[in-house]
Order: sequence, then structure tokens, then C-alpha cells
Amino acid sequence: MTETSDTSGLRPFYAMAINARARALEDQGHSICHLEIGEPGVAPAPEVRAAAAKMLDQPQGYTHFAGVPQLRAALADYYHSQHQAAVHPDSIIATMGSSSGFILAFLGTFGPGARIAVTRPGYPAYLNTLSGLGFEAVEIPVQAANNWRLTAEDIATAHARSPFEGLLFASPANPTGAAVTREGLAEIVATCARLGVRLISDEIYHGLDYRGPSVSALEFTDQAIVINSFSKYYCMTGWRIGWMVLPEAVLARTQMLQQNLFISAPTLSQHAATVALGARAYAEEQKAHYAENRKLLVSALKQLGFGLADENDGAFYVYCDVSRFTDDSLSWCEALVDQAGVAATPGVDFDRLNGNRFVRFSFAGTRDTMEQAIERIAGFVEP
Amino acid sequence: MTETSDTSGLRPFYAMAINARARALEDQGHSICHLEIGEPGVAPAPEVRAAAAKMLDQPQGYTHFAGVPQLRAALADYYHSQHQAAVHPDSIIATMGSSSGFILAFLGTFGPGARIAVTRPGYPAYLNTLSGLGFEAVEIPVQAANNWRLTAEDIATAHARSPFEGLLFASPANPTGAAVTREGLAEIVATCARLGVRLISDEIYHGLDYRGPSVSALEFTDQAIVINSFSKYYCMTGWRIGWMVLPEAVLARTQMLQQNLFISAPTLSQHAATVALGARAYAEEQKAHYAENRKLLVSALKQLGFGLADENDGAFYVYCDVSRFTDDSLSWCEALVDQAGVAATPGVDFDRLNGNRFVRFSFAGTRDTMEQAIERIAGFVEP
Repeated sequence: MTETSDTSGLRPFYAMAINARARALEDQGHSICHLEIGEPGVAPAPEVRAAAAKMLDQPQGYTHFAGVPQLRAALADYYHSQHQAAVHPDSIIATMGSSSGFILAFLGTFGPGARIAVTRPGYPAYLNTLSGLGFEAVEIPVQAANNWRLTAEDIATAHARSPFEGLLFASPANPTGAAVTREGLAEIVATCARLGVRLISDEIYHGLDYRGPSVSALEFTDQAIVINSFSKYYCMTGWRIGWMVLPEAVLARTQMLQQNLFISAPTLSQHAATVALGARAYAEEQKAHYAENRKLLVSALKQLGFGLADENDGAFYVYCDVSRFTDDSLSWCEALVDQAGVAATPGVDFDRLNGNRFVRFSFAGTRDTMEQAIERIAGFVEP
Repeated sequence: MTETSDTSGLRPFYAMAINARARALEDQGHSICHLEIGEPGVAPAPEVRAAAAKMLDQPQGYTHFAGVPQLRAALADYYHSQHQAAVHPDSIIATMGSSSGFILAFLGTFGPGARIAVTRPGYPAYLNTLSGLGFEAVEIPVQAANNWRLTAEDIATAHARSPFEGLLFASPANPTGAAVTREGLAEIVATCARLGVRLISDEIYHGLDYRGPSVSALEFTDQAIVINSFSKYYCMTGWRIGWMVLPEAVLARTQMLQQNLFISAPTLSQHAATVALGARAYAEEQKAHYAENRKLLVSALKQLGFGLADENDGAFYVYCDVSRFTDDSLSWCEALVDQAGVAATPGVDFDRLNGNRFVRFSFAGTRDTMEQAIERIAGFVEP
């Protein structure tokens, strides 16, 4: 089933509402386990911080609009070494997190009111940004029975019913953690090419793939727009630094938009990010720690009666069916934070149709936080 | 005369093209005086850098979508002490420079395709952002004979000819430095109210007003959207941190857009900016230094035959008539940087109709840079 305007108006990002509620409770002296926001609880690697510290006394001026040459060169090397993909530094733009990358991708590629497909469930900013910018979102439902993975067939079916010009999807995905396989991604790329659909591949959770190395769309095509960020794998959310790789056809217009809409990404963050790319050992340590949290949380939630997909491929989220406890995930999350001190994100953020039955927990926090959260959730659902 | 679509398509930001050309020349070993980019040449105040350094070892997570409470409280205090204006911290959003503020102001306030007025000459990102987001720009010409100052009458005349829903203007202005007087601003606010035009007051050059204290639209109304930034007065361009103040009527929608389009402004920059607000003595030192540069540059350029408005009120730019030397400011700027090693911005960035006769020089650099630039410009125009 494909929904468009009836479910795609501008909505709040409920994770942030829950976060604000949790912060208010903390200000009153309550203890809160934060499982609502998708961000690592640690600072980036020591060498990243040291590089930033060394630069602080210099003026941090605007950079080249596309980012400092060192960062773009390091990113080209990254695609070569991690993905055996040839990416020219001039086809890269450093962005303010992935957020400004989405805006640039939409405005740089599509005409006013264009129809762009996203998955349901999916990252809420996709629908809200599309709506805010005047595009029409087409939702492609993905299924828990398929471990929430998007397939080429899902795309073809949705397109046959109601064509679209672009497809934006993430692998690993938010909120489900679903990651397509290498073969699955190759088929998606081929299907988009066949249908004349511009693929925007959100690779922000790359590196956090528990089944093996992440696969980039750039391994199969130079026609996809790839969006990525240092926020998650490199623990740099608040540094607001990401990047995008652009195909030739949309590069010049996107560069002009970047110059005018954003000027340049934060300078200190660009230099720190350049160092972060070489600090993968630290990132892998964090990932190992998420993997442990994941086991702990998944097994505890299953025992408590939460519904979970069989496999959970990547990122640092579990997306649970809470229909055993509620048919109103927002109220349930409000009660969970108010009464039990656990902040979680209601599924209505990610799925405006069925989200009332789901809740997302982030396991990017410390092990202590996970253990305490599990105890509190248990007390809340089995009082 | 009011132009709309014929002069408002998406264009490059030529200052950046000249900057890229200048950087390439530097890479080849040439010496360049940078007068093309509007940014201070120094780092922010020592206490700002110290505050940032102290925070680097902590995780820099996302903040409250509107910015950390300390920054918003400090900004409310700033409006009270500098402008005797009551601003509630909840009506403030911390933004990624002023850039994301413009995007939020347009999308949060106006419907698709709305007509929004800007001055000609004006900041090129205004037209390009409006065009990129699908709005229609209406240009209101301002005159050198009036020292480039926008008047309430200019607005009323333009509106009578071709109505618009919003007006975005800066005082002090880029590229002219023009600042309206207190009375002038009161009249502009009253005229916008009378015409039902939502005023967006770009106050990014506040503090850099050479005729006396800067005047905020918030001194006269709580119905204006005010956009400001730490980039210029506080020497923080590359930190990408600014803010906006929003009237009640558009606050909720703009907050939702901020949550989804940008999540939150750079965390380190938010904390550094909070400290910067209290470091005005350092900012005033820089301003005194710009004032000296300004005298030097204005008098030298006049002597060399550049046409200048009688008064130059604020910011750190001189906008010169170069018709004595060229009728193609872009080619002239390319030659100036290639042959004389002085980077300047062609007027075509700021005025698509008459900009071929104008060039903008920034005097935010060091005195040495100004002296060297003057010598080189003299050699270029009087070989």
C-alpha cells in the first residue's frame, strides 16, 4: 500500500519531544536512561579531539564551499579502500551532518513537487523534509517478516502503482537496523536504473553493520547520490559534519545550492573529521560495545514480550512491536519516561500508519544504561 | 523598477569562484590579498577558545533542537541589555550560521511560491536561496544617491507596483554597508505592518555600525523575524553558529522544520557562542581596527577614481562604482586577482542588473593586507 499526502504533512520529531520531556525530568532531579536519541555516548577518538584542540587558536574561517581539500581527498581514499570505488574529490561536498545533505539532494536533483519514495517505517526527517520543501513523499512499506529489508520488488511494485522520480533509503536503516545484502543492493540499483528513478543512498549507519562490511551504492553505480555522516560510526553527532557524493548530472546545481544555502560546513569539524576517517580502530571498539548491548537488549526485550524481527542487521536500534502493551506508542513512551525513567521513541515518528504499535530503543549508550533500562522497562511492563 | 523572474534564477556565488581562483594561485606560490570574502581574519576572543578547548574531551551530542538553554538565555539577556527588548528564550532558535536561519524563515512563514522582496544590490544568497526553495523574489532597488539605504517609501512603491508577502533586508547591509537610521527602521516596520508584509530583519552586521549603536527591529515590533549570527562581529564564520528570533504565529512550524531539517546547531559552537556574547570588548577592538582600515581604503579608492557613496555606515565592505575602469566587473575581478594578486567580489554577485559596474572590497583583513592591496590595485588601474 502506498500513501502520499494523507500521511505526509509536517509533523514534530517526537523523539525530540520525548527528549525534552526527559531533560525536564532530569532538571527536577529524576534519573533518566536515554534510549530515545540515536547517538553514541562517547566523544570521538582521542586523535580527533587532539587535532581539534590544536586548531582552536587559529581563525576558523569559511572553507571552500565543498569542504577542505584534505577532507575530500581522505574521503576519496576511503571509497577506494573500503569500497573499491573510484570517487573524485570534486564530486564530494562536505555537509552539516547528513541533514543539509538531504536538503541539497532534493533541491539539487528534483523539480518542484517531484514525487520521492521512502520506506515506511523510516527516518521521520525524510517525510518532514520532503513536505517542508514542497515535494511529495511516496511511502513504500517494508515488512517485519522480511526483517524490514527493502527489496527491488517492493520498489517495482510501488512504482507500478504510482510512479516516482527518486528513492531515498538507508541501509542499515533507522529505526529498524535493517541492512540489505550485497545482492539486494545490486538489485535495487538495477531496478532504479531500469525505472529511471534517481537513487539517494543514505549510508549514515555504514560501519555499524553486524553481519559484515557495509556495502555502498557506489560499488555498483556512479549515478546514485550517496549521503553519509561522521555522526554515528565516528561518534560526532553534535559536530554536525557529514558529506555527500554526487553524480555529474546534478553536481553543478547542487554546488550552487551549497554555496548559497550553507556557504560551508563547520571548519573545525571538517578538520576533525579528516582525522576521524583514519581512526577506525576506535570506531570499531565502539561498535563491539554496541554489539554487546544489542545482544543484552534484544534478549531481554524478547523475554518481556516485545515483538522483534528475527534478525537485526546494523545501526544501534531495536524496533519493537509493543502491541502486547499498548495501541498508542506515544502515550506509552510518555508514561515510560514519566513513571519508569526510560526515554524511548514512539513508532509514530517512523510510521504514521502502524507506528502506534511500535517503539524504538537505541542501544548506543553505556552497558550500565542498558542494564538499568532493562530493569526499569521490566518493572514498567510487569509491575 | 521591480524585477522578478528575469533576474532571479539560481546563480553561482561569484565571491566563492574568485576565492577558489585565488586559492589556486596561492597553491602555485602567488601572494594574494583576500578582500573577496566577508570574514574577520582573527580567531574569536581568548575566553571563547578556552571554553571550547575545555569541552573537547566531552561527547558533543545533539542539543535541544532550539539550542542549549544557556545560549538562549544569554541571547534574551543580550536583547534586554543592548536593545531594551523583551525576548523569550523559547522564541529563539540557534541556527547553523545565518544560512539555515534564512531557510527556516522562508519555509516556516510562507506558502509555496510566495513573493518575497529583497534589496538590489543585496546579499546574493537571498535571491539564490529563494530561487532554490521555489519562492519568487521581488527586487527593490536602492540608490547610491541615498547612500544605498532602503526607505519605507521604496517598500511602499514596490509593493504598490507588485505586491509581496515578505521583506528580507539587512542593516547594516551587504555589499554596501548601508544602515538605516532608528527613524528609518521604525518607518520600515510600520510600513510592513500596514501592508501586511512579514519583515525578516537580517541583523548579522549588528555591532559593526560606525555611526552609533545598531538598532534592532525588535525594538519596534514582536512581529518581525530577526536573523543574526556570531560570524561577523564575534569573528566566528567557520563555527557556523547563528540564531533567529521568531514571532508566535510562525514559531511552532519553524521549530518543527528545525527539528527535521537541521536537528540542532553545532554543539561546541553553541557553547563557545554563549561565551562570545560576553566578550564584546574583544569584538569592539576588532571593530576599531575595521574602522581604521575603512578610512584607509575609502580614501585610497576615491583617489584612484573609484566611485563611492558619500557615507559608509557599517559592516566591513566598500561597494565601488568601477565604470571608469570596466563594464564587466567579473572579468575585471578575474584580471585583478590574476595580474595583481588582489581578490575582490564582482558586483554581479549583488546586482544582476547593474552589478557589472560595481566591485565589493572587504576591509575585514589586517592593516598590512589593506596597505598591500591598495598598492596593488593602484598598480593595476594606473599601470
